Amino acid sequence: MQLIDGKAIADQIKREIAEEVEQIKAAGGKIPHLAAVLVGHDGGSETYVAHKVKACEQCGFRSTLVRFESDVTEAELLRKVDELNNDADIDGFIVQLPLPKHISEQKVIEAIDYRKDVDGFHPINVGRMSIGLPCFVSATPAGIMELLKRYDIETRGKHCVVLGRSNIVGKPVATLMMQKANPGDATVTVCHSRSSNLKEMCLQADIIIAALGVPEFLKGDMVKEGVVVVDVGTTRVPSDKTKSGFKLTGDVKFDEVAPKCSYITPVPGGVGPMTIVSLMKNTLLAGKKAIYR
Amino acid sequence: MQLIDGKAIADQIKREIAEEVEQIKAAGGKIPHLAAVLVGHDGGSETYVAHKVKACEQCGFRSTLVRFESDVTEAELLRKVDELNNDADIDGFIVQLPLPKHISEQKVIEAIDYRKDVDGFHPINVGRMSIGLPCFVSATPAGIMELLKRYDIETRGKHCVVLGRSNIVGKPVATLMMQKANPGDATVTVCHSRSSNLKEMCLQADIIIAALGVPEFLKGDMVKEGVVVVDVGTTRVPSDKTKSGFKLTGDVKFDEVAPKCSYITPVPGGVGPMTIVSLMKNTLLAGKKAIYR
Repeated sequence: MQLIDGKAIADQIKREIAEEVEQIKAAGGKIPHLAAVLVGHDGGSETYVAHKVKACEQCGFRSTLVRFESDVTEAELLRKVDELNNDADIDGFIVQLPLPKHISEQKVIEAIDYRKDVDGFHPINVGRMSIGLPCFVSATPAGIMELLKRYDIETRGKHCVVLGRSNIVGKPVATLMMQKANPGDATVTVCHSRSSNLKEMCLQADIIIAALGVPEFLKGDMVKEGVVVVDVGTTRVPSDKTKSGFKLTGDVKFDEVAPKCSYITPVPGGVGPMTIVSLMKNTLLAGKKAIYR
Repeated sequence: MQLIDGKAIADQIKREIAEEVEQIKAAGGKIPHLAAVLVGHDGGSETYVAHKVKACEQCGFRSTLVRFESDVTEAELLRKVDELNNDADIDGFIVQLPLPKHISEQKVIEAIDYRKDVDGFHPINVGRMSIGLPCFVSATPAGIMELLKRYDIETRGKHCVVLGRSNIVGKPVATLMMQKANPGDATVTVCHSRSSNLKEMCLQADIIIAALGVPEFLKGDMVKEGVVVVDVGTTRVPSDKTKSGFKLTGDVKFDEVAPKCSYITPVPGGVGPMTIVSLMKNTLLAGKKAIYR
């Protein structure tokens, strides 16, 4: 069993990005600039945004954090989105989800100029990814593909089972895994809460991408020997063993599943760091106007 | 074994649409108006477009056929697209594919105003469908879902195997089959030319949607008893038994597979008529501005 070290790969990629930014700077080009909009003080969101800001520093990007209290109106937030859309210095920006219930996340996502949508959530980027056109691929699916690539894991013709059909992980990673590309070219099965044959499917899988958001869902008796397991789950489970009072828990019962795996990602330190670094890659692409002008 | 009569369902839906158009007319509303752009004289394309124009008549729509010779330049074609985008009387239009090699199909598709893109090929419509937002769903996937619905075929929790990963059938129908909806909620596997376990997958399938474009690919020994088979193939195979010199051939070896099926669509008379009627439904939605304003 080999542990897939998302943290090490992410660090490596950040160094690669930082080098490219140095070159851009040396050539008198524009330093990529990411803005993050954070509404309220949700613990998870605070942490994610702080990691993103820190990753910007490591990559040599400029970053701007825009904060709103959780009682911000939808209209105010949309005005800020519009302002960021029109700010020539901002290459890309994200609005950290989830948003308070009185704000329509979909409305906010669609208000973002797709050319600055480095989260890849805008329908145009989703559609272009599905068709196979250049676009901002959303960060978690992109990070998973990058891990498979850097570890040289064969996907072609393999059976990949995706657990979960969310818009931000399950569906896009399924699309990427089936596309004519490397990594890609896999037979892809998407299972979800309504699947009656989920265990049967998992037992056949060469690769399992677990993105249900159900802590320790995938058990040892659900996987075959030699499987590759990518754990996307990051549920905060209460714990008296940590200072913070919670523990990030994946969708995979690691101690049972890991011994049967050829490769497995841990939680934390697997997909998580790759998600942030994928956002950095998208920001670099946005800064270079490599996808859209 | 029950034959799924796509022709009968399509006729039924056309009558439903025609009734609604009568009501619109009676209320002094605008009659939906579809334009079709046909480049060159490809036999298949001529037939499809003729069927679409005829279906418009049956539905009580206005239709306009715009013809170009196959030496039309990309620029000329794009000018026409722009003209149709800006013609307030045209509610929706299609550019019949394939186009001659010197014209970029993708460029043409993206030039169409997504609000008039009744083929549902524009990235915005593809993305919105993937996310589950109101949009023009492309005609063949929409037609397949409608057949499953009208025949009250259970899809929830079932294993649906999609053969083919094309942008216009395989990928979108897989997305629709997995969505939280009825029909939908299926475990979905997408197999394609690189799949190493295609037969094994088909043998497990409760529902098979065959969209590879390989005549008689799915054989009797590849399906289990009681399977539902939807045949999307329409390859023109030379034949000395027909006046036209060819025969429309599906992806399914019908005589072998049909006896094992609970339901099966024939070719012709299955998915084909539903594809055209789905275009009519999109045109009606466009005319009513039911999706976009």
